[in-house]
Amino acid sequence: MSDLVVEKITQAVGILQETGIDLWLTFVRETSAMADPVLPLIYGTPTLTWQSALMVARTGERIAIVGQYDAEAVRQAGAYDTVIPYDESIRPHLLQVLARLDPTRIAINFSQNSEYADGLGYGLYQVLAGYLQGTPYGERLVSSEAIVGALRGRKTPGELARIRQAVAATDEIYRRTFAWVRPGVTEQEIAAYMLAQMEAFGAETAWDRSDCPAVNAGPDSSVGHSGPTDRPLEPGQILHVDFGVRLGGFCSDIQRVAYVLAPGETAAPAAVQHAFAVEVAAIDAAAAVLRPGVRGVDVDAAARAVVTSAGFENYVYGTGHNLGRNAHDGGVTLGPAWERYGQTPFLPVEVGQVYTLEPGLPVEGYGYMGIEEDIVVMPEGVRFLGERQSELILIGEQKP
Amino acid sequence: MSDLVVEKITQAVGILQETGIDLWLTFVRETSAMADPVLPLIYGTPTLTWQSALMVARTGERIAIVGQYDAEAVRQAGAYDTVIPYDESIRPHLLQVLARLDPTRIAINFSQNSEYADGLGYGLYQVLAGYLQGTPYGERLVSSEAIVGALRGRKTPGELARIRQAVAATDEIYRRTFAWVRPGVTEQEIAAYMLAQMEAFGAETAWDRSDCPAVNAGPDSSVGHSGPTDRPLEPGQILHVDFGVRLGGFCSDIQRVAYVLAPGETAAPAAVQHAFAVEVAAIDAAAAVLRPGVRGVDVDAAARAVVTSAGFENYVYGTGHNLGRNAHDGGVTLGPAWERYGQTPFLPVEVGQVYTLEPGLPVEGYGYMGIEEDIVVMPEGVRFLGERQSELILIGEQKP
Repeated sequence: MSDLVVEKITQAVGILQETGIDLWLTFVRETSAMADPVLPLIYGTPTLTWQSALMVARTGERIAIVGQYDAEAVRQAGAYDTVIPYDESIRPHLLQVLARLDPTRIAINFSQNSEYADGLGYGLYQVLAGYLQGTPYGERLVSSEAIVGALRGRKTPGELARIRQAVAATDEIYRRTFAWVRPGVTEQEIAAYMLAQMEAFGAETAWDRSDCPAVNAGPDSSVGHSGPTDRPLEPGQILHVDFGVRLGGFCSDIQRVAYVLAPGETAAPAAVQHAFAVEVAAIDAAAAVLRPGVRGVDVDAAARAVVTSAGFENYVYGTGHNLGRNAHDGGVTLGPAWERYGQTPFLPVEVGQVYTLEPGLPVEGYGYMGIEEDIVVMPEGVRFLGERQSELILIGEQKP
Repeated sequence: MSDLVVEKITQAVGILQETGIDLWLTFVRETSAMADPVLPLIYGTPTLTWQSALMVARTGERIAIVGQYDAEAVRQAGAYDTVIPYDESIRPHLLQVLARLDPTRIAINFSQNSEYADGLGYGLYQVLAGYLQGTPYGERLVSSEAIVGALRGRKTPGELARIRQAVAATDEIYRRTFAWVRPGVTEQEIAAYMLAQMEAFGAETAWDRSDCPAVNAGPDSSVGHSGPTDRPLEPGQILHVDFGVRLGGFCSDIQRVAYVLAPGETAAPAAVQHAFAVEVAAIDAAAAVLRPGVRGVDVDAAARAVVTSAGFENYVYGTGHNLGRNAHDGGVTLGPAWERYGQTPFLPVEVGQVYTLEPGLPVEGYGYMGIEEDIVVMPEGVRFLGERQSELILIGEQKP
């Protein structure tokens, strides 16, 4: 991952220049207890044990102040040109660096809006604020959420290649699964089959294994973050699957739907076909609106309007989210103005961001109709990563 | 892990009664980005996606307010008797629960002293404080560090059994390693051998693999959190290894030392033998002082005095730390009054806590003399877990 760290820290210097921040300070401690989610981008994975300050300046200077036992590992990682080790207290070293750089705006690792920029515990913030008492720097602290949002969101070529690889593996796992699945197998058996395929790719699940994949057979299966059950897949049901893998440190997040033909049927019922068409149209609507500069809330509104205008229930989650190192990767939410999303639906979309598009709707008596596609934002609009689902998969079809 | 969660939440209710806290509120969001380190104790591992409130009351009532898609998984886990799902905002539900319970003291998940009780990001704290504006509850928030410290520290029988298992596996890996090691093998080869043994036990490393094990051959090898190098082990050197495994979710953390006989030697040089004796005596001193009720700083002082009185350099880390789910498990530090340890050396030792004892000293011209033992605190004093190192291991000994 070290190449990616260098790629991202270089990108960070450009973002600091763009946002007018003089110094970006990430303050952490004992990262084996809880690792600030920005560390994989600017540091890598090794533990930082004592209080540590990772600093990137607008001038391009990169300084790490770390406990003496961590200093060698930080030097070896090579991302920081100055590594300052300490024994008893980080305070004098930190104050010395601040006095030398005298930054006017210091972005630190807290954020109301983004869980990926909020790695500084409230207690550790109080410790830092204590260290800065009697200096002018306590007053100069601002949130690093704009920096982290831009840095996580704008994928480098190395990052995008890894996401494409995760998406391609997921497409293949879905192909194998739908070729294998038969009425009578349970949600849990489908999940187990998919996980075995995933392991053959050397991949991990993109989120917690307890609901990755989520598998819903028919209308009585609970959609959300609960795990697959021993409910068998039956004729006349929609099979809905939500699955993603992590490969090379990056994730996919894809939903697919199929219909199990009932005896005598050669196609899905009209209600199911209609719901499928509405679902695809809702994704098309989001993709058409989604361009650099547009706000997330507007992308969401377009997809949501297709679903509700067709008479379906309003879905109670956002139309899409960023995808990257995590399946839910922070930054802009393609979602409505609900309190739980904070300001994230009002942020502008940028080139290089990767999103999911996942409106959804329940089809009464049949099951859940949810497709989720992964896309990357290009200057001219969106490009789909992997294969779109443009036709409803039929299970139990008799080949002539 | 679900049995352990029930064991720990039951224990938590007792601790609330003891500390006079009415309500313990753990406030989190998108735990796949950064998981509050208390979640494995009170919730388990599944992701919580939107803002979520996990509450344990002094009365024994256990309430979770979570996003609707997580509700089913939280119900299934069974640790919370009331699970309240929400769609757009957690605020009204949270205010309703607080109004009903009307707690006088509410402990929340921040702490200046403990990284294991500081899972609430500063930004998310601001969000919570905003929700509580206009209510009396914002003024009633206190740190949950005393609760978390007691809960993590006091091992249940189930937890202690797992730690013993990790220690036993580590003892066996050391036995095999010292029976195999020969002059000429490199630090990296020793690490690879130990990791292969570890995998045979189905265990993981207790901390980051890049320096677990840490292997130091001779006096020029950097002691600390840097990884093993291609430096070969040579006659006349001390071999020092720091290693721990995680098995069943719990860790060991053990250091061992050996001496490589030089041609013609049948025993270690006097300087090395003396250093070994001082090291063992320093551990004995810490173990003798370590009893329920004593402060960490006093345990540290006893071991440190043995090392410095013998004329060795003062080691720049604490004599010991808590051990449990993580190798460094927070709570009391058996360490000196240095700023980076905050108040943790002044906390009292309690029955059921598990500590490492690990003074250390460099032996000029030979290498690093560091032994680390794992112990549990009993009402009458300490009990060593696993086998103590009471003799210096000799490598290259000719059997008659």
